[in-house]
Amino acid sequence: MRKPQLLVAALVLLAATSSLVYAKVVEYEWVVDYAWAAPDCVEKQVISINGEFPGPNIRSVAGDTVRVHVINRMPTEAVVIHWHGMLQTGTPWEDGAAYVSQCPIDPEDEYTYDFVTENAGTYFWHGHYGMQRAAGFYGQLIVDPPENFTEPFKYDGEHSIVLNDWWHASMIDQQLGLFSVPFRWVGEPQSLLIEGRGRYNCSLMAGGSACNATRESCKLHVMPVEAGKTYRLRIASVASLGSFNFILEGHNFTVVEADGHYVEPVTMSDIDVYSGESYSVLFTANADCSRNYWAGFNVRGRDPKTLTGLAVLQYVNTSGEPSTPAPVSPRWNDYAYSVAKARQYLARKEFIVPLPQRGPDRQIFLLNTQNRVNGRLKWALNNVSFVPTATPALAALKYNITVEAHGGHSSATPPDYFQEGYDIMKPPPYPETVQGSGVYELKGDQVVDIILQNACSLTANVSEVHPWHLHGHDFWILGYGDGVFNASKDYASLNYYNPPLRNTAPLFPFGWTVLRFVTDNPGVWPFHCHIESHFHMGMGVIFAESVDKLPDVPTDTMGCGATKFYRSP
Amino acid sequence: MRKPQLLVAALVLLAATSSLVYAKVVEYEWVVDYAWAAPDCVEKQVISINGEFPGPNIRSVAGDTVRVHVINRMPTEAVVIHWHGMLQTGTPWEDGAAYVSQCPIDPEDEYTYDFVTENAGTYFWHGHYGMQRAAGFYGQLIVDPPENFTEPFKYDGEHSIVLNDWWHASMIDQQLGLFSVPFRWVGEPQSLLIEGRGRYNCSLMAGGSACNATRESCKLHVMPVEAGKTYRLRIASVASLGSFNFILEGHNFTVVEADGHYVEPVTMSDIDVYSGESYSVLFTANADCSRNYWAGFNVRGRDPKTLTGLAVLQYVNTSGEPSTPAPVSPRWNDYAYSVAKARQYLARKEFIVPLPQRGPDRQIFLLNTQNRVNGRLKWALNNVSFVPTATPALAALKYNITVEAHGGHSSATPPDYFQEGYDIMKPPPYPETVQGSGVYELKGDQVVDIILQNACSLTANVSEVHPWHLHGHDFWILGYGDGVFNASKDYASLNYYNPPLRNTAPLFPFGWTVLRFVTDNPGVWPFHCHIESHFHMGMGVIFAESVDKLPDVPTDTMGCGATKFYRSP
Repeated sequence: MRKPQLLVAALVLLAATSSLVYAKVVEYEWVVDYAWAAPDCVEKQVISINGEFPGPNIRSVAGDTVRVHVINRMPTEAVVIHWHGMLQTGTPWEDGAAYVSQCPIDPEDEYTYDFVTENAGTYFWHGHYGMQRAAGFYGQLIVDPPENFTEPFKYDGEHSIVLNDWWHASMIDQQLGLFSVPFRWVGEPQSLLIEGRGRYNCSLMAGGSACNATRESCKLHVMPVEAGKTYRLRIASVASLGSFNFILEGHNFTVVEADGHYVEPVTMSDIDVYSGESYSVLFTANADCSRNYWAGFNVRGRDPKTLTGLAVLQYVNTSGEPSTPAPVSPRWNDYAYSVAKARQYLARKEFIVPLPQRGPDRQIFLLNTQNRVNGRLKWALNNVSFVPTATPALAALKYNITVEAHGGHSSATPPDYFQEGYDIMKPPPYPETVQGSGVYELKGDQVVDIILQNACSLTANVSEVHPWHLHGHDFWILGYGDGVFNASKDYASLNYYNPPLRNTAPLFPFGWTVLRFVTDNPGVWPFHCHIESHFHMGMGVIFAESVDKLPDVPTDTMGCGATKFYRSP
Repeated sequence: MRKPQLLVAALVLLAATSSLVYAKVVEYEWVVDYAWAAPDCVEKQVISINGEFPGPNIRSVAGDTVRVHVINRMPTEAVVIHWHGMLQTGTPWEDGAAYVSQCPIDPEDEYTYDFVTENAGTYFWHGHYGMQRAAGFYGQLIVDPPENFTEPFKYDGEHSIVLNDWWHASMIDQQLGLFSVPFRWVGEPQSLLIEGRGRYNCSLMAGGSACNATRESCKLHVMPVEAGKTYRLRIASVASLGSFNFILEGHNFTVVEADGHYVEPVTMSDIDVYSGESYSVLFTANADCSRNYWAGFNVRGRDPKTLTGLAVLQYVNTSGEPSTPAPVSPRWNDYAYSVAKARQYLARKEFIVPLPQRGPDRQIFLLNTQNRVNGRLKWALNNVSFVPTATPALAALKYNITVEAHGGHSSATPPDYFQEGYDIMKPPPYPETVQGSGVYELKGDQVVDIILQNACSLTANVSEVHPWHLHGHDFWILGYGDGVFNASKDYASLNYYNPPLRNTAPLFPFGWTVLRFVTDNPGVWPFHCHIESHFHMGMGVIFAESVDKLPDVPTDTMGCGATKFYRSP
């Protein structure tokens, strides 16, 4: 057996801002296989890296090359790994989105991801094939700034926490339920995990042998702090379903980074974290140091049925869990509170990346609706519910390989607009929709606006939060609003001065969100709701950007579907 | 949605024995996906065909072409289908063994199996990738004799039954348990199924909502009969683990066919059926016709913990389940009884296929042992525990494609012999063994003898039954014996006159079994224990037969591993 190892293998010269610094290669060997884990005291199968759950964290310096050798040891399942937030400039085939950037890595096969980290910040990685992220296939990815760079804030130490919701049903049961007629909802999560640890009340479980509250694996995560010192807490959510609200009992904190970009410092007593987002917050350990405190998070945006996810903020020389109650979050459906919080994030003054000096060259309006296809519950954009093909779109577009539509799915280009006058406040009048694998082709060097438009689901008066994540780009969030976006009026209300750059943005119930980005990174990029089940049910689109400038794609990213026998020239 | 359909698509002229008959193409479209099923009243996910579990039965006439379009709709798992008992003469790539005859069919991809049925008889099909058969991925395959052929027995009607053992744990949990350190045994089956139906005692189940004894799906299978008439009962076992003993309450029956070959009629009150075997038995409905009777089977070869698997033999004009107790099988560990039964099967006089007029050109002695590799429990042959490569062996050998050994596995040719003097009565003195993907190369037109030698497992005094199944061939079973096979003595005791031709043969505890076949079918053929977990744990070998005469392999069977970019010339 080869052992997992971190090889600092090579030093490569890199020209930085004002002086020469060394960029290195950080190299990992990751064996992917199923394993047993009991993150909330209940044992089930998870997808592990080198036997670990959650998977290992990657740490690199901006400009470093990250090289991860993936060896798939699952018996019948292929895998890919998406490096969430990495821009993959010039390396779109390393994005790790199954059937978009590459063919999945077959059992007993191997693939080496190789990409350069760009902006320093807090990121993560996760499976991006079927619902493998929901099987626990994730970890953090932190990019430190180069040595000669001074961040606009100071701290004495840091802690990393990944938030997640967790079900006892297997990934296959979960996804089968989503595709069943009638629909079988997996329900609210059994547990909320911090750093892969939570705690299920074993007495709730029939049978019970699988639940054991004394397991080492479900001891809550502990973050030691020293009184008086300031800490950076790196928070990310890989949630399958929920929006979260995180609280550090007895401590306010100041948000300083979001999705790899510095934001104007905002001090808060609680923070909303949507699936796909990451934040750095600073807090000072200035509470009564004779006791410990809860770090906790609750579900928002859905009537919460799950106990607060907890970790322990441990002051030096004390131990044990706090005796205080778990932190309580704002009312789950106080969306006005959430929107107001989201609006607080603005690009940090010294780091504003100015918008292009022109308006959008293209506007894509995406109506988010819940629909049905042959009785199956689906999500759709402009009435098209996305399904992957068996062929990676990147290689197919680069080499002009014809991808046959299959199973009656449409391969037509989906529309940029939805029907004028669509009543977003009511369930869709014609719920039946079509499935499609078509892509949006975007020309290079264009300013693209995406207007995400939320609507009522199939259930009257219900509209859900959807955190939208874009691959290959950060986008400016120009604004959020209620109701139907009105271009002639609402464009004037947007923030063109210091909008935050993000890779994930929430779309609030019955509201709209406007995003802008420049097509400066040729590639084929998924843009989708980061809720695992929603994307699996069709809530996403594919942007094929600068198809004429796509780089050659390495041969080993092809070999499936219609690329089965294509070799890179 | 395309609908499943049976298309009798074309009529092809076929020259038969004495007259011209028409051979047709029987064509199916099979969509493979997970589905919910509750075969024993407890719901779980299964692998289904067109939503059905068990999968559909195929019926054809000898000489027909069977064409099955497989469309894989599972989200992250590939599939193959093995046509168990089909000789695949000239079409070794259609054998459906993952990474031996073909690359697995990826999600959203398709593949069409296309082969000619040869000997009339009772067969079945099943998944042959990972442990997908254990997920319920199986069905029957019946080949009728040509119209102008008269079988050597008569009957008025027929019933088909497939026997299986069934667990509530998912396939992934089962296989993960097998590979865990410490080993996690899935335990004895929860239920025994006849035609995908059984009955679990819901009161045994904690929680219980998944168990519902009133489900339509777990009503026992019913076989209507008319008093006084004679029936052909086609029995097959796709068991994951158990050896079975089948009884028709109140009726003796006569075995007339085994694995597609007529046998000398043998009348029995019960029949042993090993995983991978199939039989036709005749019985006359001559019992008291005022009541119904049980068809039932029990586990043999392992101390049974599972209730008898039951179906109802229903006499016309009566209904309801018998009030009599379930049939009782012989003592589970009365191996002498089992060996005696196995010896009763002899080729039917008019249909004896004579042995070649010479002794073996090659003898391969295969010692069956239980071992460990890095702490994991494994099975091995001559101290090599088989692991598949990521490359189909057939294409690799045909096109001389180098397959790199991976994960430290050996690619060396495994040995034809085991160590002389090995004490089969004791646990292996050196349990640690190696994993290998090497193949046995067999020259063409040779008489090959396989001497299967059983031994003690890692547990003192324990030796298990292993039903060995060969792809691409029927073999003669020359004999069974106790202890260590002694070539100079035991060769004289074998049956060279009328040994039965079979594709599966049991190897009894602490005993040996001798098989013979002629290498007249160029191909690459797995030979393995048909117990799903045993093969998954390494209990198999690969025969590469007449490598110099391998036919060209269709391009669409390649495309994975080292065949990733090979096209057939």
